[in-house]
Amino acid sequence: MGAAELRVVGLGGLPDMKPGHDIAALVLEAAERQGTPLEAGDVLIVTQKIVSKTEGRVVALAEVEPGAEARTLAEETGKDPRLAELILRESRRIVRKAGPVLITETRHGFVCANAGVDVSNVGQGLVALLPEDPDRSAEEIRSGVRERTGCEVAVVISDTFGRPWREGHTNVAVGVAGMAPFADYVGQVDPYGQELRVSILAVADELAAAAELVMGKLSGVPVAIIRGYEYPKGSGTARDMVRPPERDLFR
Amino acid sequence: MGAAELRVVGLGGLPDMKPGHDIAALVLEAAERQGTPLEAGDVLIVTQKIVSKTEGRVVALAEVEPGAEARTLAEETGKDPRLAELILRESRRIVRKAGPVLITETRHGFVCANAGVDVSNVGQGLVALLPEDPDRSAEEIRSGVRERTGCEVAVVISDTFGRPWREGHTNVAVGVAGMAPFADYVGQVDPYGQELRVSILAVADELAAAAELVMGKLSGVPVAIIRGYEYPKGSGTARDMVRPPERDLFR
Repeated sequence: MGAAELRVVGLGGLPDMKPGHDIAALVLEAAERQGTPLEAGDVLIVTQKIVSKTEGRVVALAEVEPGAEARTLAEETGKDPRLAELILRESRRIVRKAGPVLITETRHGFVCANAGVDVSNVGQGLVALLPEDPDRSAEEIRSGVRERTGCEVAVVISDTFGRPWREGHTNVAVGVAGMAPFADYVGQVDPYGQELRVSILAVADELAAAAELVMGKLSGVPVAIIRGYEYPKGSGTARDMVRPPERDLFR
Repeated sequence: MGAAELRVVGLGGLPDMKPGHDIAALVLEAAERQGTPLEAGDVLIVTQKIVSKTEGRVVALAEVEPGAEARTLAEETGKDPRLAELILRESRRIVRKAGPVLITETRHGFVCANAGVDVSNVGQGLVALLPEDPDRSAEEIRSGVRERTGCEVAVVISDTFGRPWREGHTNVAVGVAGMAPFADYVGQVDPYGQELRVSILAVADELAAAAELVMGKLSGVPVAIIRGYEYPKGSGTARDMVRPPERDLFR
């Protein structure tokens, strides 16, 4: 009766990603090189930043023309008006605005700071936008791995989000492919015969969080392999993780 | 240049915890038995449920006398009035109330469903309350391990919380000892020379989330060992993870 055990392996040695770079191919090579080649059943966690870079979702601020709304928002928040313009373009709506803090709902439905528009680890004068469809990005990496190796893996695209009520950020899943994002215990019965009622675990988010522990922010490890986790089968997406407005008490 | 790697090992074979049981001693024995004895630098993740059980924080509903406020709340939510009474006793305030859903702020400051009062995995007619001071509970387990083995480990007490905007629950840290709950990248500079500004990672929450992946809800694995993670040194607590009201945009 061995205990459940999983490994979280950071993947170093990847190049600085450019538009057109093939993440699946580069990950397979890097994993081989460091002696941890991919295996069927692995979960690959990939930060959105390198996905955005390979998909050309990096914008030079110098080329952005801020509109009137962006200029007003820039004044209110102290942000660069061109950055404010990009945030507005990426957002459905502004959720909260307080001093320099701007929480918006992205076009995907994610609620996060600055619509996920990010200035770190991109380059001076450049900003990265979230992938247009991170679930599709995850699926492309997954099928890229399968085509090259025959291995079925799951893929999670991760990003770093803040949360209400709690200090600090955690990594969450913004894209999912090859697995269900939830492990569902609803209707099951505990060892005492009590039905479990509120037990849908957002395991894609937990996988993203676990991966962050080996990635750090500066260590140049934008990918992690999680091995030994029996992920829930299915074909859900990270979009399923966005709570619909009618079920949301905090909109 | 080996990649960062960590292991998350579920700990099975623990007894059904009762008041007075010594978690540190039982964990050390179980870890030894399953061939993964504790080592210095491990992080021990312990679900609040077994801590509550050993600390006598389990209540028989039959012995609870609901007051007037609890009876009103029970009518509004469809909850057992005795459960409503316990939730009120454990709460500072009600944050949201919608149909059967009740989100409150606990006396510790955590915002979660039903003040963390939980009917699963306890026993018929019984409910578990959160530990009175989960940081103290974590510290007791940590010093228990040190006294018996000389090993310095970090301890995180975990619980399963919901989140605004996102479906599904994740495990978070409600108690921390022997480590700082955050990894702080603020003021550091990325490889492009850009300062990282919003990069305080709530790693205690990420450790709790990672551990859930080997615990499940029904598998009788209430403890996990995380090995190979260089946790941030310090003496912070889970109470530090509660965002102060004046910095919180979603109260």
